[in-house]
Amino acid sequence: AAAAWKGLQGLALKGWEFGRSDPRKVVFAAKMGLALTIVAMLIFFQVPFRDLSKHSVWAILTVVVIFEFSIGATLSKGFNRGLGTLLAGGLSLGAAEISTVTGNWEEVIIIIFIFVAGFLASYIKLFPKMAPYEYGFRVFLLTFCFILVSGYKTREFVETAVSRFFLIALGAGVGLGVNICIYPIWAGEDLHNLVAKNFIGVAKSLEGCVNGYLQCVEYDRIPSKILTYQAYDDPMYSGYRSAVQSTSQEDSLLAFAGWEPPHGLYKKWRYPWSSYVRVSGALRHCAFMIMALHGCVLSEIQAPPESRQIFRNELKRVGIEGSKVLRELGDLFKKMRRLRKPNFLFEVHEAAEVLQKKIDQKSYLLVNSESWDAVELPDGMKWMLNRPNTEGENKSELAHDYRPPPLSASYGAHNSITSDMGSVHKMDSLLKRQMQWPSRQSFLTEAVPGPQESRTYESASALSLATFASLLIEFVARLQNLVDAYEELCEKANFKEPVDEPASE
Amino acid sequence: AAAAWKGLQGLALKGWEFGRSDPRKVVFAAKMGLALTIVAMLIFFQVPFRDLSKHSVWAILTVVVIFEFSIGATLSKGFNRGLGTLLAGGLSLGAAEISTVTGNWEEVIIIIFIFVAGFLASYIKLFPKMAPYEYGFRVFLLTFCFILVSGYKTREFVETAVSRFFLIALGAGVGLGVNICIYPIWAGEDLHNLVAKNFIGVAKSLEGCVNGYLQCVEYDRIPSKILTYQAYDDPMYSGYRSAVQSTSQEDSLLAFAGWEPPHGLYKKWRYPWSSYVRVSGALRHCAFMIMALHGCVLSEIQAPPESRQIFRNELKRVGIEGSKVLRELGDLFKKMRRLRKPNFLFEVHEAAEVLQKKIDQKSYLLVNSESWDAVELPDGMKWMLNRPNTEGENKSELAHDYRPPPLSASYGAHNSITSDMGSVHKMDSLLKRQMQWPSRQSFLTEAVPGPQESRTYESASALSLATFASLLIEFVARLQNLVDAYEELCEKANFKEPVDEPASE
Repeated sequence: AAAAWKGLQGLALKGWEFGRSDPRKVVFAAKMGLALTIVAMLIFFQVPFRDLSKHSVWAILTVVVIFEFSIGATLSKGFNRGLGTLLAGGLSLGAAEISTVTGNWEEVIIIIFIFVAGFLASYIKLFPKMAPYEYGFRVFLLTFCFILVSGYKTREFVETAVSRFFLIALGAGVGLGVNICIYPIWAGEDLHNLVAKNFIGVAKSLEGCVNGYLQCVEYDRIPSKILTYQAYDDPMYSGYRSAVQSTSQEDSLLAFAGWEPPHGLYKKWRYPWSSYVRVSGALRHCAFMIMALHGCVLSEIQAPPESRQIFRNELKRVGIEGSKVLRELGDLFKKMRRLRKPNFLFEVHEAAEVLQKKIDQKSYLLVNSESWDAVELPDGMKWMLNRPNTEGENKSELAHDYRPPPLSASYGAHNSITSDMGSVHKMDSLLKRQMQWPSRQSFLTEAVPGPQESRTYESASALSLATFASLLIEFVARLQNLVDAYEELCEKANFKEPVDEPASE
Repeated sequence: AAAAWKGLQGLALKGWEFGRSDPRKVVFAAKMGLALTIVAMLIFFQVPFRDLSKHSVWAILTVVVIFEFSIGATLSKGFNRGLGTLLAGGLSLGAAEISTVTGNWEEVIIIIFIFVAGFLASYIKLFPKMAPYEYGFRVFLLTFCFILVSGYKTREFVETAVSRFFLIALGAGVGLGVNICIYPIWAGEDLHNLVAKNFIGVAKSLEGCVNGYLQCVEYDRIPSKILTYQAYDDPMYSGYRSAVQSTSQEDSLLAFAGWEPPHGLYKKWRYPWSSYVRVSGALRHCAFMIMALHGCVLSEIQAPPESRQIFRNELKRVGIEGSKVLRELGDLFKKMRRLRKPNFLFEVHEAAEVLQKKIDQKSYLLVNSESWDAVELPDGMKWMLNRPNTEGENKSELAHDYRPPPLSASYGAHNSITSDMGSVHKMDSLLKRQMQWPSRQSFLTEAVPGPQESRTYESASALSLATFASLLIEFVARLQNLVDAYEELCEKANFKEPVDEPASE
């Protein structure tokens, strides 16, 4: 008993915490209780007309069914219910009229009608375009069958249909009234907040990926939830995942938001909710690049820490400027303001430009020039080397001359680590990593790779830095698309000019 | 009238086509009609007991509501309905007992009960863990309120509860019986087919991306649907998009599949459906790399066609082997067979290895060595060049020597295009592209870039090939994870050994 009591306390505490995290949920539950109470009282006191209790179930059913969390969902369900009921009422009265004139065949006719209605309604609702009206089809079918079946015995076709309709109207009136008039919860607002949250999430992922990459974060073992794209609490992962994952949630919120009348901040008639979803889609298009950046962090082939150090400042600046852009855009979006300056992306483009130039200058660090002649060339390339020497030089000598100064030496001088240590460490970690890379194990017969293989991986690992930088620059390029989508939204939704010009500008 | 007739004909034709594309939908609709017909006949002929029509609505309601497309969904809804009704019946009888003993306060007590029940049920169902039982809460609330309200007038609390329960049981029995016994439609089978389809889709995207990249496919104008991640019919895009997008569909199918009893090919008790979703997640993890590959095709910065030609065979081979692996895995998955050979990934790993080596040898093609000394170095790097010369050589001279043979020359010899034409074309398209790259326009004051900028873009464009190759190799590395997930599934689901060892092995 004591354990049960403790369990109950724990549950109550959880419920309390849940309500504190989003008080709207408590309000919603209280509204539901209130609406049911009102309907029950109306039935008890026989307002507005007598003998309600006989069909009272319809009023209660309607309240329970159309009372949804957001106004948009409630209106959409209410519309479905109303349309379904009216259509079914009309058609079933017609069907009843036909069946009564056929005399002896009445039952047969009614049963045929029920089968046909059941078939058609179930078939049509499966069309993808009919998905939003799924509930309406159910209501139609239910009402149609009910009126025919119950009217058959009682001969009160019209009375059944009419009293039913009044009670549904009563339930719908109370439900809609309570839900809309008392502390309304708008799907549009939820959509707005969801997209704003995605901006922050993507910005956090970007910061996480760039910082993680520069700090050479490595997963000892990549969590299997990441490998199978399940929800997982990782600063680099969760942000972009939830942005990518929110499509279905956005779609349903969008469908409900369309039902909501102009309200609060969203005063325009036919508010452009679909542009909100377009902005979110453009953000997602950027998030895919961050996904790929995270892929570089997850990869078994990793650039040596020394070369990351050389590009450290440039990479970091692009990361900082990129996430600043995302955060600022998210903030403006949340506050429904236009962009402050014409060249919103100036800083991040400049940072990307600097990174690009740095890569350009230092591109010899990204390749492994030692292998240009050392590796045996495949057949297809041999003839090119053996062809009459147009440059008038020996190819092998030429390649030898291209070799840039050893990376570890210049890095060592810069960071006062001896060059020997640097390269030993580098080679070591590469060999280790090579053994881990799962794809290797299957076709490497010798356990320790020969010198040629290890050089190949050195090259791969250096190129992985180039990949990271390219993806980051591509991310920056995609920001323009996001800004375009945002400006289109500003136009359509009539966002205001920003009020407080910040002092920093 | 003629137009209306024509419109009707068009609709009928659409309906016919829709049914032909998936005959299960026609069967489902017919089953629904049949179930309703049976219930109506039972009520008409007063089987199994008399005076059913008074509460007949409950039987019809139950059939309409629990009749879902798949068996799993039907069982899940039926369970919710049953549990909700039983709980509500028990609790409402207790509440009615309490309210009658309080005498004059009866209405007040009943209304308090209704409010509390409405509040708690609506609050608890908002907990994320309760989401699968959302319908059960609705049924509970409806039944609880209905019994209290209708019983208050008629004093037939018990009779209302009992007759209601019988009619619901009748409706549920007919609905479940018809849906399960006649041509059952299984959610598990849908899940199986969905994942198998994703394999094919991802394979097609991979082929599309690699071939498109080698044929230098460029979008004149990237479709805005791709930029905002909406559905769009593009061979590179639609395949991976639907694989990435199918998470929510998989989750709901998974929830329903868990309700289904062992059947057909899925004979094991507690069938491991969640492993199916894990395999799909691992496939998605691979698809993200294809997404990034597609990003390279979409990018404004493109590698020159000449250098793509040089890596053509290697890239192509990885693409072919990779999509072969995906198609084979998808086929085995569909047929529920284990992997044929221990080294399933041998060929694709070998292809990736060859590509990696080729990149290693030819890495001078991926960078722009001309800029190693020509570009002005940022301040942070200057002191490194001016520091006491440890190599005993002039840095600028050194850098000059690194220059590899001009790309266009060696390519020209290979493809009998004159080297001049090659480089002129290259420079031209680079300049053009630079003007298109949206990020440029905002901070380039001069309309035509100076020579320094164009060199920077030359380097960026060459590195973009390295990025493509790296991403492709990372994709291959991720295949191991997919194979692991698949083998885990084979173990858990007890897949059979492949029967027909193909002759090619």
